[in-house]
Amino acid sequence: MFLRNCWYVAGWSHHFTGDRPVARTMLGEPIVLYRKEDDGIAALEDRCCHRLAPLSKGRVEGDDLRCMYHGLKFAPSGSCVEIPGQRFVPSHARVRAYPAVERDWWVWLWMGDPALADTALIPQALKHGHPGWWMQTGELAYEANYQYINDNLLDLSRLSYVHENTLGRNSMAWANSKPQVVRIDRGLRISRWVVDNPAPKYLDQPQGMLTDMWTSYDYMAAGVFLLQTRSYHAGTAAACGMREPTALPLWTTVTSQAVTPVDENHTVYYYSACLDKGIATEAQLAANFAVIERAFAEDRAMIEAQQQVIWKTAEPHMLGTSSDHALNQFRRLMDELMSAEGTIPAVRGSGLTVVRVPAQA
Amino acid sequence: MFLRNCWYVAGWSHHFTGDRPVARTMLGEPIVLYRKEDDGIAALEDRCCHRLAPLSKGRVEGDDLRCMYHGLKFAPSGSCVEIPGQRFVPSHARVRAYPAVERDWWVWLWMGDPALADTALIPQALKHGHPGWWMQTGELAYEANYQYINDNLLDLSRLSYVHENTLGRNSMAWANSKPQVVRIDRGLRISRWVVDNPAPKYLDQPQGMLTDMWTSYDYMAAGVFLLQTRSYHAGTAAACGMREPTALPLWTTVTSQAVTPVDENHTVYYYSACLDKGIATEAQLAANFAVIERAFAEDRAMIEAQQQVIWKTAEPHMLGTSSDHALNQFRRLMDELMSAEGTIPAVRGSGLTVVRVPAQA
Amino acid sequence: MFLRNCWYVAGWSHHFTGDRPVARTMLGEPIVLYRKEDDGIAALEDRCCHRLAPLSKGRVEGDDLRCMYHGLKFAPSGSCVEIPGQRFVPSHARVRAYPAVERDWWVWLWMGDPALADTALIPQALKHGHPGWWMQTGELAYEANYQYINDNLLDLSRLSYVHENTLGRNSMAWANSKPQVVRIDRGLRISRWVVDNPAPKYLDQPQGMLTDMWTSYDYMAAGVFLLQTRSYHAGTAAACGMREPTALPLWTTVTSQAVTPVDENHTVYYYSACLDKGIATEAQLAANFAVIERAFAEDRAMIEAQQQVIWKTAEPHMLGTSSDHALNQFRRLMDELMSAEGTIPAVRGSGLTVVRVPAQA
Repeated sequence: MFLRNCWYVAGWSHHFTGDRPVARTMLGEPIVLYRKEDDGIAALEDRCCHRLAPLSKGRVEGDDLRCMYHGLKFAPSGSCVEIPGQRFVPSHARVRAYPAVERDWWVWLWMGDPALADTALIPQALKHGHPGWWMQTGELAYEANYQYINDNLLDLSRLSYVHENTLGRNSMAWANSKPQVVRIDRGLRISRWVVDNPAPKYLDQPQGMLTDMWTSYDYMAAGVFLLQTRSYHAGTAAACGMREPTALPLWTTVTSQAVTPVDENHTVYYYSACLDKGIATEAQLAANFAVIERAFAEDRAMIEAQQQVIWKTAEPHMLGTSSDHALNQFRRLMDELMSAEGTIPAVRGSGLTVVRVPAQA
Repeated sequence: MFLRNCWYVAGWSHHFTGDRPVARTMLGEPIVLYRKEDDGIAALEDRCCHRLAPLSKGRVEGDDLRCMYHGLKFAPSGSCVEIPGQRFVPSHARVRAYPAVERDWWVWLWMGDPALADTALIPQALKHGHPGWWMQTGELAYEANYQYINDNLLDLSRLSYVHENTLGRNSMAWANSKPQVVRIDRGLRISRWVVDNPAPKYLDQPQGMLTDMWTSYDYMAAGVFLLQTRSYHAGTAAACGMREPTALPLWTTVTSQAVTPVDENHTVYYYSACLDKGIATEAQLAANFAVIERAFAEDRAMIEAQQQVIWKTAEPHMLGTSSDHALNQFRRLMDELMSAEGTIPAVRGSGLTVVRVPAQA
Repeated sequence: MFLRNCWYVAGWSHHFTGDRPVARTMLGEPIVLYRKEDDGIAALEDRCCHRLAPLSKGRVEGDDLRCMYHGLKFAPSGSCVEIPGQRFVPSHARVRAYPAVERDWWVWLWMGDPALADTALIPQALKHGHPGWWMQTGELAYEANYQYINDNLLDLSRLSYVHENTLGRNSMAWANSKPQVVRIDRGLRISRWVVDNPAPKYLDQPQGMLTDMWTSYDYMAAGVFLLQTRSYHAGTAAACGMREPTALPLWTTVTSQAVTPVDENHTVYYYSACLDKGIATEAQLAANFAVIERAFAEDRAMIEAQQQVIWKTAEPHMLGTSSDHALNQFRRLMDELMSAEGTIPAVRGSGLTVVRVPAQA
């Protein structure tokens, strides 16, 4: 059960180089991507209409892709343009083509009705390729449904637990701070102050210096996480009345992350971190990125373990807590978007019966 | 399909040490075990009631166990005692707790209704930890339903075949001796004389000395095997009229074995062998134990192969033989116990249609 | 869904040597083969009628096979002839026996009604063991349904694509030549001229010499491929009016191949190549066979990839092309043979909806 009329990240720009077509499975569909002569990306159904061999084992010929089983050739539109051994190519000889856009170092595919593919709906990755910022990128394959990864990213209170030794830095600050959650177009904006944090060791800041961090992220359907963290001198949060700060921060960090379903049981997670060159060296960003990747491995270990338990549970029920506020809102948003396109979730909350905590919580 | 109101071995005492919780799957249920401050064992459902993460990835805090995904904390009773970020903890925030008893180096869990957990029903392992006896322990993981392991242990006539080169010692003695089978409370007692056996090489006995062995074991629901073998001078069996001997034996060996279902398709097998320190050295027991473990590997290879055949057989039928007497009785006993607790076997004989051999057999 | 009243290759003669029984799964059935004292092959159901242990873990005793779990012994007829511990052996104590014939270095089993097993229906492998011919043999295990391997062998136009660098030799000759397809008893005869081929490098022929090849193969139910290629001076094809040549060829090569279903999802492929000793050395055949085996690995990679796509496709549809002519005929033949024995294919075309290309193709 997936939202179809949506842009999904199919990979980093550098995944699609040279003449070799690249296979991807997204939303359960086999897809082959390759670069055309103008360097643009073509994305086709990875399944020849003749005998169903994968076109990703085929050969790029100019703008076209030839199946290397029996030689049928396809244009970027999906139309078959050659069938060896016969002159006539019927018009129904074709495979599906997916609208593809390369932007901000990410290749995006529109998985729904091509007529609705509006590039204005592509989320804006933060500082990707910006000349004034360092950038690190990575990706992880998950054996888990994408929703559990969304859930995870929508509740940063977990940092105090699953990441106690990495991002959580042995502090209850994340568990105890309540974010503001605001609905935005096709997403949520989730913001909070985390106060009295020691400055991160990877920056050249005075030892023992405390900062207040304004962290705010947009979480966009179907799973794009765009986080900005602005650091201020301690006391700024209180001085702002815990509202969004308007002053220039001491420094800013950003990260962009995209959750792409492979199928119901597998997901790929693409992520970047960027840092202002005026604040840190490339080596400092790399050192911090190593910590981030350790934390992402902690997330994956926990989420895959959670998924294994859920798969083995005949009727999974979840008990709501107050920190589930944002993720429940996001699941409702996804339900609305899927209902709107006729994919009606079998059970609200995307297949899980949620036992909600009583109002006095 | 399992007998639930029953004690099952969850592991050896030495499996549960230090501060790390230990995961087990028993009867298809995920369970986490850990030691409390008084060294007692707590056993909880290994599935947080919040987002279903496994508690076995959690942290022991005193007598409690904290989920390290979002920080919920549980007492040994299964009650949630803390939810980070909220003051109120609803009473239905809890996980299942299992009665747990550590006895004779084994940790036993009661898998059924806790109100019926009667420690008097725990089978008595033989000589575990007895100061006058040497002890060796081991365990094996099986990819097979537990019933085929029970079947195997309930028919020692196989020793002449599957163990021809180890325990069977190239003799038809086991295949040809008929045991007495007596029903006892929640089990069977299976006894026989095996006559004219050469004394085992691993003991310091005269070369060529022949012995009569009285072997008798209790096989207790749902799969506990407690075997005592008493060895006498050859001729004793006949002198006793093939009845149970009352005289002191030359020596005695014992073994205790426990079959614990992981799920319908996997099983764990825990076993010990003990030997009187007055009869043999620790090295002699170890040498014999190595032979026993070779034999257990022979059993596992055969039973897993049998299980593979059964899984691939649309309608498995078995032909009864006279040596199936005890195992058929035990399957009937298990059926009775399961019926009594409302788990009615779909087909008598626990899922297998048994074609019985005619009466003249 | 398999054709049952048919001979299938169970392996090469040299697979069945010594005293060890050999396990095979064919058409989803577990089978054990062993040599009797007269060197003949016995083939039994690989599943003891007692507790369903595999007889292939048993012991050959003269002409009989003993189960090494509890010792039941079976004759080549399938009848149980001994049950340890009891005198009476009931007549229904038996396992299925399969008619087995060793011919031409292949061991053939009849998988249907034994009363219909007619050795006249065994296809005649080409030159196997002929003293005047060199022979090379091999086999491959596939994770794919056997029909896709049949399909592949029934359309040699693919040589120009999947084998562009091996058998296809970078030529469109195969893709562009149309074969004649003639129905024969339980099979098809598929013949064509491939003109203006350079003489193969592995033979000592003049550099640049061009030949016309008459290639003709019989494809027999359920998957036996018997190919003869006769090479002539260029121009012979035209001189014959593109009909079958009657003159003596320059040289002839043959290959025999057999596709044996393991189950619906797995297949074994046995193949040979033979070459006239008057034309080439054994080393030359071996060099050519290495190329053939590279090509067979190319086939397997493509077919297993095709199968993976088909397994993941909810409703697989195939678009017919003109080069599918022979394979569609063969699927119809198989449907007829299966219908005749009461195995009615669920969907014509053996489970695949074939969208046919219009007549003007």
